[in-house]
Amino acid sequence: MDHPQLKIIGTLHCGIHSLQEAPKNYDISEHTGTIEIESQYHEALDGIEKGQTVVVLCWLHQADRDVLTVYPRGDRSRGLRGVFATRSPARPNPIAISEFEILERRDTLLTVKGLDIIDGTPVIDIKKKI
Amino acid sequence: MDHPQLKIIGTLHCGIHSLQEAPKNYDISEHTGTIEIESQYHEALDGIEKGQTVVVLCWLHQADRDVLTVYPRGDRSRGLRGVFATRSPARPNPIAISEFEILERRDTLLTVKGLDIIDGTPVIDIKKKI
Repeated sequence: MDHPQLKIIGTLHCGIHSLQEAPKNYDISEHTGTIEIESQYHEALDGIEKGQTVVVLCWLHQADRDVLTVYPRGDRSRGLRGVFATRSPARPNPIAISEFEILERRDTLLTVKGLDIIDGTPVIDIKKKI
Repeated sequence: MDHPQLKIIGTLHCGIHSLQEAPKNYDISEHTGTIEIESQYHEALDGIEKGQTVVVLCWLHQADRDVLTVYPRGDRSRGLRGVFATRSPARPNPIAISEFEILERRDTLLTVKGLDIIDGTPVIDIKKKI
């Protein structure tokens, strides 16, 4: 169990093209976009329907994986904080947890609301919200 | 961006030794245990303190990664469901999201409450709860 390898299950498409444009968190975002799930995972979507809110894990492929401390929200006045005490994308495993509302589902294409992630980001998991 | 490799940042130690003993979710668990973070990530814990509730991502190394549908909670009467519509450990990337209360912190050793994960499970991320 040294370095488990992730499988990319889909890709997120949206109008957010830079980190500057991205809302800080899903809970303050009205952005919509689509999640295109790879066809081989079609069956794994059984039960996913319009109107649900789901938990989506994305792999933040542009994040710096070697940074251990950050200025929370870029505010230098409060000093450096360990990445594990923040929601910064910079961290050893840059996995984002978001909650998206499903506005529409067409086969393996999910239209979602609440995006805080940039266009082209790989999706690695979808879970029922508890 | 084919198969990103995860870094193991720590290991969970607790008295839960089988899936049968594990509570279904962290929100119904009173189990306590420890998270031992690798010393190289010491700085990344700056700001993590006793009394906080943190989000912890674990890699469920015993889960079946090739299963796409499951009987939710083992109940066959409701039929098969796609894994992305469930919280089943079985899924392409078996990452568990839990929320643990930190009862004590000693350097890189965190004593936590709310465990729904078996002993020896690798930890891959800790985040501030939002």
